[in-house]
Amino acid sequence: MAKPIQSALIGQKFMGRAHSNAFGQVAKFFDLPRPPALHTVAARDGAELAAFAERWGWANHTTRWRDVAADPEIELVDVATPNHVHAEQSIALLEAGKHVACEKPLAGTLADARAMRAAAKRAAKKGRKTFVWFNYRRAPAIGLAYRLIREKRIGRVYHVRATYLQSWGGPGTPLVWRFQKKHAGSGAHGDLNAHIIDLARFLTGEEIVEIHGAVSRTFIQSRTIPGTRRKGRSDVDDAVLFLASFKGGAVASFEATRVAAPHQNANSIEINGEKGSLRFDFEDMNLLRFHDASDGDREGGWRRIMCTSAGNHPYAEAWWPDAHILGYEHGFTNMLADVCRVIARKKPELPIPDFEDAYQTQRVLEAALLSARNRTAVKLSEVR
Amino acid sequence: MAKPIQSALIGQKFMGRAHSNAFGQVAKFFDLPRPPALHTVAARDGAELAAFAERWGWANHTTRWRDVAADPEIELVDVATPNHVHAEQSIALLEAGKHVACEKPLAGTLADARAMRAAAKRAAKKGRKTFVWFNYRRAPAIGLAYRLIREKRIGRVYHVRATYLQSWGGPGTPLVWRFQKKHAGSGAHGDLNAHIIDLARFLTGEEIVEIHGAVSRTFIQSRTIPGTRRKGRSDVDDAVLFLASFKGGAVASFEATRVAAPHQNANSIEINGEKGSLRFDFEDMNLLRFHDASDGDREGGWRRIMCTSAGNHPYAEAWWPDAHILGYEHGFTNMLADVCRVIARKKPELPIPDFEDAYQTQRVLEAALLSARNRTAVKLSEVR
Amino acid sequence: MAKPIQSALIGQKFMGRAHSNAFGQVAKFFDLPRPPALHTVAARDGAELAAFAERWGWANHTTRWRDVAADPEIELVDVATPNHVHAEQSIALLEAGKHVACEKPLAGTLADARAMRAAAKRAAKKGRKTFVWFNYRRAPAIGLAYRLIREKRIGRVYHVRATYLQSWGGPGTPLVWRFQKKHAGSGAHGDLNAHIIDLARFLTGEEIVEIHGAVSRTFIQSRTIPGTRRKGRSDVDDAVLFLASFKGGAVASFEATRVAAPHQNANSIEINGEKGSLRFDFEDMNLLRFHDASDGDREGGWRRIMCTSAGNHPYAEAWWPDAHILGYEHGFTNMLADVCRVIARKKPELPIPDFEDAYQTQRVLEAALLSARNRTAVKLSEVR
Amino acid sequence: MAKPIQSALIGQKFMGRAHSNAFGQVAKFFDLPRPPALHTVAARDGAELAAFAERWGWANHTTRWRDVAADPEIELVDVATPNHVHAEQSIALLEAGKHVACEKPLAGTLADARAMRAAAKRAAKKGRKTFVWFNYRRAPAIGLAYRLIREKRIGRVYHVRATYLQSWGGPGTPLVWRFQKKHAGSGAHGDLNAHIIDLARFLTGEEIVEIHGAVSRTFIQSRTIPGTRRKGRSDVDDAVLFLASFKGGAVASFEATRVAAPHQNANSIEINGEKGSLRFDFEDMNLLRFHDASDGDREGGWRRIMCTSAGNHPYAEAWWPDAHILGYEHGFTNMLADVCRVIARKKPELPIPDFEDAYQTQRVLEAALLSARNRTAVKLSEVR
Repeated sequence: MAKPIQSALIGQKFMGRAHSNAFGQVAKFFDLPRPPALHTVAARDGAELAAFAERWGWANHTTRWRDVAADPEIELVDVATPNHVHAEQSIALLEAGKHVACEKPLAGTLADARAMRAAAKRAAKKGRKTFVWFNYRRAPAIGLAYRLIREKRIGRVYHVRATYLQSWGGPGTPLVWRFQKKHAGSGAHGDLNAHIIDLARFLTGEEIVEIHGAVSRTFIQSRTIPGTRRKGRSDVDDAVLFLASFKGGAVASFEATRVAAPHQNANSIEINGEKGSLRFDFEDMNLLRFHDASDGDREGGWRRIMCTSAGNHPYAEAWWPDAHILGYEHGFTNMLADVCRVIARKKPELPIPDFEDAYQTQRVLEAALLSARNRTAVKLSEVR
Repeated sequence: MAKPIQSALIGQKFMGRAHSNAFGQVAKFFDLPRPPALHTVAARDGAELAAFAERWGWANHTTRWRDVAADPEIELVDVATPNHVHAEQSIALLEAGKHVACEKPLAGTLADARAMRAAAKRAAKKGRKTFVWFNYRRAPAIGLAYRLIREKRIGRVYHVRATYLQSWGGPGTPLVWRFQKKHAGSGAHGDLNAHIIDLARFLTGEEIVEIHGAVSRTFIQSRTIPGTRRKGRSDVDDAVLFLASFKGGAVASFEATRVAAPHQNANSIEINGEKGSLRFDFEDMNLLRFHDASDGDREGGWRRIMCTSAGNHPYAEAWWPDAHILGYEHGFTNMLADVCRVIARKKPELPIPDFEDAYQTQRVLEAALLSARNRTAVKLSEVR
Repeated sequence: MAKPIQSALIGQKFMGRAHSNAFGQVAKFFDLPRPPALHTVAARDGAELAAFAERWGWANHTTRWRDVAADPEIELVDVATPNHVHAEQSIALLEAGKHVACEKPLAGTLADARAMRAAAKRAAKKGRKTFVWFNYRRAPAIGLAYRLIREKRIGRVYHVRATYLQSWGGPGTPLVWRFQKKHAGSGAHGDLNAHIIDLARFLTGEEIVEIHGAVSRTFIQSRTIPGTRRKGRSDVDDAVLFLASFKGGAVASFEATRVAAPHQNANSIEINGEKGSLRFDFEDMNLLRFHDASDGDREGGWRRIMCTSAGNHPYAEAWWPDAHILGYEHGFTNMLADVCRVIARKKPELPIPDFEDAYQTQRVLEAALLSARNRTAVKLSEVR
Repeated sequence: MAKPIQSALIGQKFMGRAHSNAFGQVAKFFDLPRPPALHTVAARDGAELAAFAERWGWANHTTRWRDVAADPEIELVDVATPNHVHAEQSIALLEAGKHVACEKPLAGTLADARAMRAAAKRAAKKGRKTFVWFNYRRAPAIGLAYRLIREKRIGRVYHVRATYLQSWGGPGTPLVWRFQKKHAGSGAHGDLNAHIIDLARFLTGEEIVEIHGAVSRTFIQSRTIPGTRRKGRSDVDDAVLFLASFKGGAVASFEATRVAAPHQNANSIEINGEKGSLRFDFEDMNLLRFHDASDGDREGGWRRIMCTSAGNHPYAEAWWPDAHILGYEHGFTNMLADVCRVIARKKPELPIPDFEDAYQTQRVLEAALLSARNRTAVKLSEVR
């Protein structure tokens, strides 16, 4: 029988739960050359860690993440911690010879991202792999979109419109850590624009070469400090919009906001090309809209494709018979299946972003901030 | 620590997988007074049973389901077998003192259902519980609809339109067992109308009192016998439509079909009442449409409610932070959480159908068939 | 220059306005072999008639509709009066040698309809034409659906689901004439089901051969008498549902209601066939949904077709450049263009229902009422 | 009886037809203090002018537009000519004492617009009115949105996303005049962005104060010269995107394109505010989406409002009974009703843009072009 991939997880919050679920589910649904084994979970706060480990099936637990680096049994480490510690942990883990799967965005700063990319490059020489959890790539609808584009079904790309609209940042929301730069790095930009930049780059297969303009705005600067009646200052963006060009000439708009009240999780992208168009919205994550221009004026129009048919849509066949829809967490499980395949030297269902790839997304995030700050267009070649 | 509910499962096909998944997931997401323990899986076909048990975490496996009935450790048995064996197994299990959770529809015939109901009544005196897996009751959107109706937000019910539209039964589909009466009992009717009858009864809280007319049709009578080039005869319905009245005077149409090509899994229901309306479609299972007539002509209209907010929408808080959508299989997990609560003498989040309840649904199925056969209206009081 | 078709209109209410608008607009948008001339408007109530005639451009007006029959200059008479006078007026006009365009439904009773059909047959021998204003046939989206079906794009028809849902008949609506049988004949059935029966027959090209069951319901029996605080009795249906079969074996459900609060004018039809499916909803009247099964599971799904492209969609080219949407009243203008073409012995863009055709729709209305009353299925061959 | 407003029209192309239709229809549907009389139509090309005048009911016609300026009977002149002649004609007409209703955009250049605004200011002293045909303000759904915002139902505005997506400019479209700068001035920018800038300013009631960045792109530079097989150069934009801020701090993205194949006429705007949100798409022009944040997380969501109820939605009552949808051309008729009211010194249903107002839109168009050209942000105060 195949030797399992001994795996560790650092983190026990929202992402810790989502990733733990993927580790528990993946071998039930996917036939993997080497399934993962849940070796150790590490987290700073020990109070609830034993219960967390038991609930999710981690064999061991520790409050010292460096134990994980030091443990020779462990092959793969999943870094599901806040952005500002990604670099320190990932680099140490790579240097200790682990494969590393890191939460997105790659890092809190471009400098951190650059260092992680360099570490990944060094580790690659010893066969170590890196992965970044851009989970939305693994929705079956996105997988189908990716394949249609590779099959040249939309032709030359003219236009990308990507938005990530959320609602939870209104004036009633208190001053939690996510509204403080020292803890969160940025607001909607790093959290949400990171996802749609990754999706746009992944789907088009093209790099962004210029930012034409950007605006970052903090609408609600004064928020109630939790547990008090006093007000404190929010110093992260509530929304960031920017315009960009791709290498092939396509233009794009990106918009991330936490104050779009009717939208819960509207991670959406539309791509218009010479021969066809595609549209996705995570709130309807099982659907892909596809317009095939060859359907003609008389009979053409957005097709509403349910991406639940086994065999055709990436990952769909692993789950249920045709026509049974998937949810949010399945993206992580789908990705973990591909991570396990790559570690076992098999082909993933779809390309997985590594640190090099995620570094390119980080450059775009940085260029947009520069553009907003300097009130000018910014060429990506200026941001390294 | 709470004593787990030692549980067994009979069946290893599609439903066996879906239920096994629920047994594996439920205690990870729900804090239960008594979580289930995966004691034994039973199935006729032993060839793949050991692998199935290992994959899904069942401690033991057997090809004789009566072993399960005989095992004094086991408290709860999940019957996920074909309809025609539900009665024999469920009755034996109840008589052996087990709680029984049976797949829907309750049985292949009304006589079987009647016997099961009687057995459940006897077992109830000894504290044994019965449950039927009408899983769609557990979509958070259906839960919210149920509560809005209980809060009298739609008032007197005028109208119900329920459809369950699938696409897989076209002329290209071969003569699998589902198209043969001796194996399947019926076609779309027992499989699909059972679900929407249950939803309509559950949501309105009213019983159906009359069938006004019905039509059953087999569009494709000749199908290719699998593995051959010969044709054989399909003798089950491809579609059944019927009209009904509820006790409070509401009228209703029901429609189940396997030859509605653009629909994958369109289990949908719309309820129009004096003060408001509700609409649900399983293809968008995280959404509920609600029209509150008090919004007025000027500002009123269908509201598109994302049922993903913790605390408000039944079951949503168990899963992920707000705004992360759920999928098909979560319905089973949500239901199993309620089954465990009931066995532990706690209140379920929402009412669970027992054999008595599912027997009422079976009577409606039967009355519709009678109406189609006799070309007359049929009062439910005539069908017992 | 072409000799105009001297035309008269009987009626000055809602339909009088809608038809007058069509008479005023048709020659501005369509190049007709013989455009209509607005010769005379007749209506019982003379108080506002002169103003009506001036506003809409009718050259003459009279309170005696028989003047119109007697006037030798008039070729075409449009009967836009209440249902119970259709027969008397239309028959007299046909006997006077006029072409007659009558509002739908053809008549208030089957006996009236039968007499009108006979009169039309006699008049046809002298070259007189009859037309019935089933205006929804003339939405460009319906025209495209008609053509796709004729081109065998959906193949054998399996299923029709037609609903006409309105909201205005709630308990707050007073006892206007529409709720009194002696004035209105019937409620939702004659008003709304007539439209969807016509659409279903028109699109499929098949006749209905059996009613499998029906239910008629008056939910609100007591309504306030307008201008008083007293209550009176409503004796027409608020909703009628029925099931039917077409000659080719397709099954169908029809539903008309005035108490579906979130729906304004949801005249909708879905047709599922062996090779494709079509869906239309008048609330989105410029759209046709089309599913071409040959798009396959991987890439297929409802196509959202904007029916606004000149040349492809019937009537669209008469109006504006591509992509400019039409509204409710355009259906009447489109139909009048075809009426004028037929009178000028040219081919209409699409078939127009004549009295024979509308009589078939009337038989279906009658059969559904019989089925509801007798609580049995009814074969259409029994209703003549 | 009221003295009619003697009116003239310059232009007989697409806009000439649309405006002529409005002149013919307005007094049929609206009770106006002073209805328009169709005095004269002027157009350069005399070949088809007589037929045009007869078809649409213009009493006189001329190939010299200055005849219209000179005719003392004429009070109102509608300028429906290409952008580059708007200034010359409008200024001369104003100086001749006419009220002027000019097609949008106000002019082909900012200098022209500035001169027109100055002429309007001078003429205003003598009581002359100016109007600009931003017809989309007159969709009932936009009217309702306007009123909801004035009633403070969405509160402080955070975000505007406006797109105008069309499909007709793909590589197969030949080099018609619209692709040549000397004839058209600009491409999608002046044609489409003008509309959505006007809508955004109108709805929010706020001015744009800064352009944060812009990109203008000509995707298809070489097109077939009509009637030849040779290629010529297109020198106008196929798409222009820009980001902006409003005075109150709201951020906005604008996007106009002619190469978005699945979109016919997607003039859409979404406005997110502190208390609510609004969304409109001209392809569903009878609908307004409204999210009232006070509906709460549990029950809130986009409401789909059919804007067809008389009395509530501006203009709806003039047309048909409730629930009958309007089309493209009704916007012109609705606007003309307001133009007639203003000339008769009555209050319009909704504010009409005059030359001053349209000049502000022109400044935004210009600022966006400057931003794209200079690769910097541009403050509106720099553009006069």
